[in-house]
Amino acid sequence: MGEIPESHPRRSSLLARQKLVDAAAEGLLADSAMIAHGRGEAFDYLLGEQTSDSARSAIREASARLLTAERPVISVNGNTVVLAGEDLIRVAAVVGCPIEVNLYYRTPERIARLLTRLAEQRASVAGGPAPDGWSEDWAKAVSSVALLGDGADGSIEGLEGARAICCTNGIGSADIVLVPLEDGDRCEALVEMGKQVVVIDLNPLSRTSRMATVTIVDEVTRAAAALVDEVVSGHAAQGDWDNRAALSEALDIIAGASAGE
Amino acid sequence: MGEIPESHPRRSSLLARQKLVDAAAEGLLADSAMIAHGRGEAFDYLLGEQTSDSARSAIREASARLLTAERPVISVNGNTVVLAGEDLIRVAAVVGCPIEVNLYYRTPERIARLLTRLAEQRASVAGGPAPDGWSEDWAKAVSSVALLGDGADGSIEGLEGARAICCTNGIGSADIVLVPLEDGDRCEALVEMGKQVVVIDLNPLSRTSRMATVTIVDEVTRAAAALVDEVVSGHAAQGDWDNRAALSEALDIIAGASAGE
Repeated sequence: MGEIPESHPRRSSLLARQKLVDAAAEGLLADSAMIAHGRGEAFDYLLGEQTSDSARSAIREASARLLTAERPVISVNGNTVVLAGEDLIRVAAVVGCPIEVNLYYRTPERIARLLTRLAEQRASVAGGPAPDGWSEDWAKAVSSVALLGDGADGSIEGLEGARAICCTNGIGSADIVLVPLEDGDRCEALVEMGKQVVVIDLNPLSRTSRMATVTIVDEVTRAAAALVDEVVSGHAAQGDWDNRAALSEALDIIAGASAGE
Repeated sequence: MGEIPESHPRRSSLLARQKLVDAAAEGLLADSAMIAHGRGEAFDYLLGEQTSDSARSAIREASARLLTAERPVISVNGNTVVLAGEDLIRVAAVVGCPIEVNLYYRTPERIARLLTRLAEQRASVAGGPAPDGWSEDWAKAVSSVALLGDGADGSIEGLEGARAICCTNGIGSADIVLVPLEDGDRCEALVEMGKQVVVIDLNPLSRTSRMATVTIVDEVTRAAAALVDEVVSGHAAQGDWDNRAALSEALDIIAGASAGE
């Protein structure tokens, strides 16, 4: 798409778009991944392309729940790896949990390519600086992050076909799953299995958003970066979480943008 | 993406998505075309995936202006050809105007492929039934639709590079251009050249929507089908057109959806 000037007001949005175009050319994405990204762009546009106060509260709540869970897992698809893979590896390092590649349109080739990309990202993150506030051995913590998805041997009850496949030592036995996805059925199935589900979804009206335990209505790159800060800070949960109120606040922002406020 | 059941509530949206995925595989689309489609999907979702009353008024206004113009032209890109090519050929046959392939990310290969696809669509439309209300020789009218874009020899003032290229006997000398696009610069440049610009854009907040003479805030497949009916009916313009009011009504619908109405 050509050079994007440093001063362009929508530079981060255009860079994200370019990353996805490149990743599609490398075979990392499903056919419809860019359509999903475009949907997100539109909602982010209406949200002002910034992390709202209610999204920040949701990120803090997600952090507290991930830190106190027994078996947290971060589930990633192609778009997530491409846009936020490194920050989610940082989150996994701090929380001490695995990352599972789990795809709606699952193929062995894309699973393998995404695991390779994640391993590269993990090496890069391990060799880089620790997040502010982290005092332990960073390279060791990062290198300990297990990357799952290959040879998946479990299944999500209530789903059919390839969408049901998961890893027994990952999503299968998790008590909480952080999953940036747009799949209402899967979100519902995971909740039905008794798991907490934290989603990152820019559409506050989607079934995924409405089914989740905690919905972070934010762009995944920004949300993952903010989540790194939160898990390092280690704040406790703030009491009862009202997910409907969080969604309602996101809808108010969109309605405000549409009303020209 | 697999079979889509006849009963699926979002069947038309999923079929459109599949058409684009197929077209991308055939090299008909720019890298970012599916992202643009996704943005449209999100806005259409908020608009209730139906043609609003104000969109219908805009379609009628567009029809009246196309029918009374001296040199109308329909400008198409890849997404438009794939999703609405046949109906736009019907519109061109009734109005008696050419169709010009004009691309933001212009390559000779995609121009050639899209012209081939349009020629196939023209043959199919010519061999099919005339629209209700049409009493003349349909095959002849359709076969007369000129398909432009190859060997473009003109330019749009105020734009740089490949985006400025157009056909002198098409957009270059048109007094009105129907152009389903998301390119605020180009819309502005065409208006600056003294042309009327009718756009089909699902984002009522976009620069394109705000710069156009008449903005149809609707999904291109639905809008093109409705436009066929309107040009055959041949209604006259209804007086002064207030494009800001039309955009405001679309925004009200989005705000209403966001407020849970």
